[in-house]
Amino acid sequence: MEEAKGVVKHVLMAKFKDEITPDRIDLLIKGYANLVPLIPPMKAFHWGKDVSIENLHQGFTHVFESTFESLEGVAEYISHPAHVEFATEFLTALDKVIVIDYKPTIANH
Amino acid sequence: MEEAKGVVKHVLMAKFKDEITPDRIDLLIKGYANLVPLIPPMKAFHWGKDVSIENLHQGFTHVFESTFESLEGVAEYISHPAHVEFATEFLTALDKVIVIDYKPTIANH
Repeated sequence: MEEAKGVVKHVLMAKFKDEITPDRIDLLIKGYANLVPLIPPMKAFHWGKDVSIENLHQGFTHVFESTFESLEGVAEYISHPAHVEFATEFLTALDKVIVIDYKPTIANH
Repeated sequence: MEEAKGVVKHVLMAKFKDEITPDRIDLLIKGYANLVPLIPPMKAFHWGKDVSIENLHQGFTHVFESTFESLEGVAEYISHPAHVEFATEFLTALDKVIVIDYKPTIANH
């Protein structure tokens, strides 16, 4: 196994509040994706809805994963005005949230 | 934004029980990685320890991400004898666990 040098994955799991409509969720997800061209250290972004069958999702419904070149890049992202403005709006819409950053160690076939 | 065709990400967040030693955690992580050559639909695997600074990790300390070509591949993995044996041992060592599967929709620079 080898550690991908310097790369940091920023993973957010979310459960939106019951009163947040699907249209509003779509807008919030677009707002999240729109941070990529605004914040240079944010190198990639993907997201998806839970489709698991093991019933271990603990009520979480969405995953958002951003990729950074370094922990310094994550810190720059967190304090960037575009992120601060978006995060305030986004977190208000969430019932539950977990955020973990990690440097992936890789094992492939 | 485009959906990566058919690919499914299987994300597990974990907090080990306090009594599980670092050596035991290392062995469990190796056991997880060792599933890759045993279970054909499991195409890739990476993991890492939380290094976040936002204090939104809710006590979770590790992330494990496996990649599959389809939801059918995830189902095959879940019911594979090597996974069943490992999961029984692994889940017993955890204080908290969340598992989400999702088909990533991608936005890049």
